[in-house]
Amino acid sequence: MSHLDAVLAHIDADRDNAVARLFDLLRIESISTDPAYKDACRAAADWLVDDLASIGFEASRRDTPGHPMVVGHGGAEDGKALLFYGHYDVQPVDPLDLWDSAPFDPRIDETPDGPVIRARGASDDKGQLMTFIEACRAWKAVTGSLPARVSILFEGEEESGSPSLVPFLTDNADELKADIALVCDTGMWDKDTPAISTMLRGMVGEELTITGPSKDLHSGMFGGPARNPIRVLTRILADMHDETGRVTLPGFYDGVPDLSDEIKAQWDSLDFDADAFLGAVGLSVPAGEEGYSALEQIWARPTFEVNGIWGGYTGAGFKTVLPSEASAKVTFRLVGDQDPNAIQAAFKSYVESALPADCSVAWKSKDCSPATTMPVDAPEFALARDALSDEWPNPAVFVGSGGSIPIVGHFRRILGMDSVLIGFGLDDDQIHSPNEKYSLTSFTKGIRSWARVLDALSRA
Amino acid sequence: MSHLDAVLAHIDADRDNAVARLFDLLRIESISTDPAYKDACRAAADWLVDDLASIGFEASRRDTPGHPMVVGHGGAEDGKALLFYGHYDVQPVDPLDLWDSAPFDPRIDETPDGPVIRARGASDDKGQLMTFIEACRAWKAVTGSLPARVSILFEGEEESGSPSLVPFLTDNADELKADIALVCDTGMWDKDTPAISTMLRGMVGEELTITGPSKDLHSGMFGGPARNPIRVLTRILADMHDETGRVTLPGFYDGVPDLSDEIKAQWDSLDFDADAFLGAVGLSVPAGEEGYSALEQIWARPTFEVNGIWGGYTGAGFKTVLPSEASAKVTFRLVGDQDPNAIQAAFKSYVESALPADCSVAWKSKDCSPATTMPVDAPEFALARDALSDEWPNPAVFVGSGGSIPIVGHFRRILGMDSVLIGFGLDDDQIHSPNEKYSLTSFTKGIRSWARVLDALSRA
Repeated sequence: MSHLDAVLAHIDADRDNAVARLFDLLRIESISTDPAYKDACRAAADWLVDDLASIGFEASRRDTPGHPMVVGHGGAEDGKALLFYGHYDVQPVDPLDLWDSAPFDPRIDETPDGPVIRARGASDDKGQLMTFIEACRAWKAVTGSLPARVSILFEGEEESGSPSLVPFLTDNADELKADIALVCDTGMWDKDTPAISTMLRGMVGEELTITGPSKDLHSGMFGGPARNPIRVLTRILADMHDETGRVTLPGFYDGVPDLSDEIKAQWDSLDFDADAFLGAVGLSVPAGEEGYSALEQIWARPTFEVNGIWGGYTGAGFKTVLPSEASAKVTFRLVGDQDPNAIQAAFKSYVESALPADCSVAWKSKDCSPATTMPVDAPEFALARDALSDEWPNPAVFVGSGGSIPIVGHFRRILGMDSVLIGFGLDDDQIHSPNEKYSLTSFTKGIRSWARVLDALSRA
Repeated sequence: MSHLDAVLAHIDADRDNAVARLFDLLRIESISTDPAYKDACRAAADWLVDDLASIGFEASRRDTPGHPMVVGHGGAEDGKALLFYGHYDVQPVDPLDLWDSAPFDPRIDETPDGPVIRARGASDDKGQLMTFIEACRAWKAVTGSLPARVSILFEGEEESGSPSLVPFLTDNADELKADIALVCDTGMWDKDTPAISTMLRGMVGEELTITGPSKDLHSGMFGGPARNPIRVLTRILADMHDETGRVTLPGFYDGVPDLSDEIKAQWDSLDFDADAFLGAVGLSVPAGEEGYSALEQIWARPTFEVNGIWGGYTGAGFKTVLPSEASAKVTFRLVGDQDPNAIQAAFKSYVESALPADCSVAWKSKDCSPATTMPVDAPEFALARDALSDEWPNPAVFVGSGGSIPIVGHFRRILGMDSVLIGFGLDDDQIHSPNEKYSLTSFTKGIRSWARVLDALSRA
């Protein structure tokens, strides 16, 4: 029996314990975006430090001005150096009344697609990061070591703009630098087909508040001559798209590449079922730019979205108020060589030039990040793909991703290394939504997958 | 000394007691729009019943499916029959943190413009309705009776669409019918010039919720092909006005009259200071339809306003959600012969026809009411105007009003009587806003004004 076979057997035998450990982590309410959960974020970090130490990692909690980082080092004395990244913070749980069970009371639910782990963070990203820890645990248990030099970085601010990340990477570059990074925050192509994400959209995020009158007014007394900031805001946001779904911001499409015929052919071969993808969430028609397939709209086209809007009276009944303020949270998803800073500046300039008399705007910016394209010809990508193909029913594929994983750009810029993005989430995991889940198969075969990938990369 | 002079002297001597009684009423948190305050609304009704009974009215609380009515009868055995109307319910107090003192802990604040009564409801409408009760109290104390037959109707749902009002008026028409109604829910022209409002805008109110995806989605996974209902809503609302500020709804201006030269001349003579009116709330430019003065925009032109909007993530930080729903509360203010039902239907039709694929809309309607124009040639109007002119530094004026007082239309339609709209609010009373106040002068001279008006109308 090879080392790897013994490790895989150990993983299978230890499954229930692995699930129990994940449940412990899922019970910690580590919502990073809401300051009320600061202590919970720290508790999650401490839990991870203790768990890493229990399997022989030299692990520590590293405090930051925000939520702490967790860093661990372990494994072989020499050989390939890997840095694994995940995040222990989770999204808020509102609207809470749409959850069928308590978001921080994890449970196994039987579903038509098999058993799932149900909890906030089950898929994004606690379940995913634990697949890697469990793979390491098994390697250590069976062989006493790891097949490569492994460092681990867990962040607690991924869902809240990662304000501490760049300073931390910069200050600890020598400690964290490796040959390649492994990032587990993405998904499978489908339940039988593992995927390595090689194109990621970037992001620009802004919160804007438009102020008109100096106080809330009565629409009977002032309706007509008083400027209504909700009206101003809806006009500004509505004008961000033309009737074909294109974003109207000047210069927005600078740096957006046309898809090569080769990539188009590869994506066509995936037989993406847009009807099923949209149908699962109650939709039937791709609503993005005209002339692009749903898959292209997600992976290869940039977007502008309003993620939240609020102003005036929003309680029960009616209140004929003309509010003083109206606000929105918006994000752009970027592709190719779009420049996040230029787009942020263009958006602010557009909004400011669109303000009528007596209105002003205030801004809160989210960290922005460019899109990323991986060098898929590097050997690590083929080795990882083959290792995944050994584990799952179908061979692994290289795919795009509509999401933004800013860490990948930071690793390249600050630590000079590329990232192999492997994850076991499924499209219906409902991350960021009520009833988030992680397939039990994703978890168990995810652990086995990392055991294989560690073995494979030791030969890179 | 005439009866009236003795009554006025009694009012002056009793001022502190009158303020104390108003404070008792202001302490009751009778927010009608929020079900949590149901008991408080009933307590306010009971307080009024007791107070009316204490001055010899045959008074009772009349329960309804919503908040109760208060009805009282008193005064002369024959002569002119008057029905006084006011409302004891108040607006919600949010945003609470913008109040300088507790909204339900009334106090006298000294201001550069003199002392004011500070509390939610001080002006709208508890302070106003108490001016009439105190005038009756003084007449009773001095003469043992009232100079006319007086009935009183207090409502507790004025700020929440008055759902029980029409059924109650219909069921009790014989009891409530009078020669003319007196309504105290309007304002002075300025602090020295009393006003009788003879034109009122009507109202249509709708809450709409647009649904796109069946659940909240992650904008990384779905951004592009997924329909964002906030985007749909902002487009629909933005398209309700053209670039000149006109409402674009088909047929919206049917029944909107041009102002007669006579009314224009009368309004011009008022020397309305638009700069001061807007400047007091941080504005400088009338934002309504081009080609109309600010006063015309308030009194003579219809409007469409968004009073509240919400959707997606509105908490601290960012959440890259594509929400399932987005909602808005909107109101139209109507003038002339605009048909509220036709406008409601046109708005619903417009929204439904503007929905893209995969979206639906749900509605909650507020009671609608047409605009009203009073028969100012009837003798009661001249008598009331002269009585007010006797009390205040400047003669009383007939004015328009941007607000909607649906009761006036109901009184005409159900009880066959017109209304004399007299009130002592000032433009800066901040009704419906934090720090609502009522000038102490409005209160004390308001009481004296009603004492005079009662006397005058007994001669109609």
